[in-house]
Amino acid sequence: MIRVTVWNEFRHEKSEPAVRAVYPEGIHGQLASFLAAPDVRVRTATLDEPDNGLPQSVLDETDVLLWWGHMAHGDVEDATVDRVWQRVMDGMGLIVLHSGHFSKIFKKLMGTSCNLKWREDGHHARIWNVKPSHPIAAGIGDHIELEQEEMYGEQFDVPTPDDLIFISWFPGGEVFRSGMTYHRGNGKIFYFQPGHETYRSYYNPDVQRVIQNAVRWCAPDHPRERLFDHFEALEDLSDANQ
Amino acid sequence: MIRVTVWNEFRHEKSEPAVRAVYPEGIHGQLASFLAAPDVRVRTATLDEPDNGLPQSVLDETDVLLWWGHMAHGDVEDATVDRVWQRVMDGMGLIVLHSGHFSKIFKKLMGTSCNLKWREDGHHARIWNVKPSHPIAAGIGDHIELEQEEMYGEQFDVPTPDDLIFISWFPGGEVFRSGMTYHRGNGKIFYFQPGHETYRSYYNPDVQRVIQNAVRWCAPDHPRERLFDHFEALEDLSDANQ
Amino acid sequence: MIRVTVWNEFRHEKSEPAVRAVYPEGIHGQLASFLAAPDVRVRTATLDEPDNGLPQSVLDETDVLLWWGHMAHGDVEDATVDRVWQRVMDGMGLIVLHSGHFSKIFKKLMGTSCNLKWREDGHHARIWNVKPSHPIAAGIGDHIELEQEEMYGEQFDVPTPDDLIFISWFPGGEVFRSGMTYHRGNGKIFYFQPGHETYRSYYNPDVQRVIQNAVRWCAPDHPRERLFDHFEALEDLSDANQ
Amino acid sequence: MIRVTVWNEFRHEKSEPAVRAVYPEGIHGQLASFLAAPDVRVRTATLDEPDNGLPQSVLDETDVLLWWGHMAHGDVEDATVDRVWQRVMDGMGLIVLHSGHFSKIFKKLMGTSCNLKWREDGHHARIWNVKPSHPIAAGIGDHIELEQEEMYGEQFDVPTPDDLIFISWFPGGEVFRSGMTYHRGNGKIFYFQPGHETYRSYYNPDVQRVIQNAVRWCAPDHPRERLFDHFEALEDLSDANQ
Repeated sequence: MIRVTVWNEFRHEKSEPAVRAVYPEGIHGQLASFLAAPDVRVRTATLDEPDNGLPQSVLDETDVLLWWGHMAHGDVEDATVDRVWQRVMDGMGLIVLHSGHFSKIFKKLMGTSCNLKWREDGHHARIWNVKPSHPIAAGIGDHIELEQEEMYGEQFDVPTPDDLIFISWFPGGEVFRSGMTYHRGNGKIFYFQPGHETYRSYYNPDVQRVIQNAVRWCAPDHPRERLFDHFEALEDLSDANQ
Repeated sequence: MIRVTVWNEFRHEKSEPAVRAVYPEGIHGQLASFLAAPDVRVRTATLDEPDNGLPQSVLDETDVLLWWGHMAHGDVEDATVDRVWQRVMDGMGLIVLHSGHFSKIFKKLMGTSCNLKWREDGHHARIWNVKPSHPIAAGIGDHIELEQEEMYGEQFDVPTPDDLIFISWFPGGEVFRSGMTYHRGNGKIFYFQPGHETYRSYYNPDVQRVIQNAVRWCAPDHPRERLFDHFEALEDLSDANQ
Repeated sequence: MIRVTVWNEFRHEKSEPAVRAVYPEGIHGQLASFLAAPDVRVRTATLDEPDNGLPQSVLDETDVLLWWGHMAHGDVEDATVDRVWQRVMDGMGLIVLHSGHFSKIFKKLMGTSCNLKWREDGHHARIWNVKPSHPIAAGIGDHIELEQEEMYGEQFDVPTPDDLIFISWFPGGEVFRSGMTYHRGNGKIFYFQPGHETYRSYYNPDVQRVIQNAVRWCAPDHPRERLFDHFEALEDLSDANQ
Repeated sequence: MIRVTVWNEFRHEKSEPAVRAVYPEGIHGQLASFLAAPDVRVRTATLDEPDNGLPQSVLDETDVLLWWGHMAHGDVEDATVDRVWQRVMDGMGLIVLHSGHFSKIFKKLMGTSCNLKWREDGHHARIWNVKPSHPIAAGIGDHIELEQEEMYGEQFDVPTPDDLIFISWFPGGEVFRSGMTYHRGNGKIFYFQPGHETYRSYYNPDVQRVIQNAVRWCAPDHPRERLFDHFEALEDLSDANQ
């Protein structure tokens, strides 16, 4: 059983009718709708709930956390960020979507500015599969076609990824590393670009398949102790020194 | 002093007037023309010379080898490939250009098929700089604009590069990892996509700058012994075992 | 169902009583004995069988191939190497054990000399787990202790791995990157150092666990077409060019 | 001209006679003594100076910053950490030494706990050169021998490095990735393990050579604009959309 928590800022949907029209149940509601499976249990959490919806008790029961945020990154409490970060170190998977690249938690895990170019122009986009053997690309052909997506362009200021799986093409002339994995501590992280709040990317079957795959890939596959609880000394193990 | 050898297949220029019109001195001649510098000595070599232009004596005096080939990869002798490979292991730099992705030496160094998508359509191309701090990107802005280039598209079947420096955008809808580095043995390798024989890419100042930078980056920066001449046993160095 | 083929050179066991005493069923027999599972079907193959035990029909029914060779690398036919290589490109997993680092197939996939330091001294060895979150490290603590193993030491002349999972310590004073993964084409590769023919490493439960884990990790997790059967052109997909 | 600033916590030297005996001019004094060169200008800075010795004016004139800290990581002001981080993003090189692995700035750049095993036992250590072609390994043979060093052991909780250059062997039975590079933003980072305050590692000629090499490698080799001053939109560049 994989326990998933979908976290959404959930502000655009309240203040902008155009967003509510696309995501009447909230972006979190739409994400949750296609992630539930016999062996996947999904709950949602949002920014304006107590403890930003992510008290320790929820995180302790989360194997994979999805993160969608945009206009209110600054409103996430530092204590929430610290709790999420510690859980990633301990092995929780994290899937950061679209404008989540600028969230406090993603910047803390990357150590860079996470800046990029962008333009909200509503053109189509094409996402190329450059690592088809990766589990996150299972069932995806050589590319994904999106009717409309916000342009995100290079240079994307992040560390070299562990796996570069997708590169996006935009008709305005830009490219973007749009699907990348990272390992931080015992946790696996996947960043995926699609998901502007006024477009229908989370209804696209290929986008859904990628996120479903990512949930399985990011989930911790074996129990792990926290190897070091504190800065500890090791006994000398060698025969040679006994 | 960096000793550069520019190797060119030099067949298109002889058989196709359209190519000769673009490169009257051969592609090797054009490449050599912008690489010479006070501290860079350049010579050229071509396929139909004895030993494919690359006898041991030439390779022994080469710090960086550039490789352009296309229609006659199969005509390069296996013994030539082995000599070049051994020199890369020993520290010689190698710059593989354009259709050289399908050369025997590049495939031997990569261990993969090195296949890709392609279309000769003469559209423009845009090369994005995704690692601006890399020495090979010195002097290059956020992108390079090419008037005309052959489309090369993903998936490009090569190992994960050590550095991904450039990603190309093509108006037909494709992307391509077009500037990548690899370390193999003691040698540094740079693959760079531009250079179809009927277009003028090697006259483009930014393309020239990238190749000039790559020569300096690929050159061995310190003398290195061949660490292992054969499969050799090591003496026990430990106090503990004496 | 994962279909595993264990390939062994099977020469030491015939000519050296000391090896036969350790591995009376052959090294392949011992490896096969701990890999069989309800969802894993295991067969074995050896060098002196027709087609080196690996005709196309066997490879076509193999998801993961294990490779143990040492004294007779040169006796493996080039055609066998080419068949195995093509299957790796198409997605077959490959686990290369111990002295297999010097096999034709591993050198062809790596593109380097694959040389290293070595000393057959029968001391103990300690294998440190440097990436405990990796599936191949499932169930392994912070290190594995081996009673006796051949020393393999750095510098190991291979490309930078995709994942560095284990580093070995030897009492004579050496270290070795002893567990590493690579992706080549659609195939996943794992190199693992233990397994000298006169020591009992393949009876060690932790070593067995690592190889069991590696079989599951290397197995292709989704069907993949061979994306390019030949060097093919792509149609222009863009609206802009229609 | 490379402008180097050597930063040292400079507390041990004041409070512990044993440390002062080894480093009478402070650790920073010893580091500075072997870094000065015709094209390298060195200054020092310490924790208890105003602005922790690193006001904006000093950082603006620093190409490469060395960082040695141990007992007082918590006393470094957050504003200092932010200034240093921003300079790394803008291209300043950073060399983090020994116990600096636990400094605020290193943890902020890595995004992980940076924890490790340790034991202060004063045994010898051997540092293996696993990437001899790297500029930081210039002039270094296959290993460096240290008479005495503190043991640091795996698992070291840091992201996969861009280059793994050195792995250390300790007689007590441990290994450690002791020389690693990272790129963060436009800055290059090198972590190097030797340098416990009571041992004489910074008098070792090979250790000195590695740090001298690292200064040259980490120095920004070409001027770079800060590519994005803020989260900015890009104009549509494509012919297709004009």
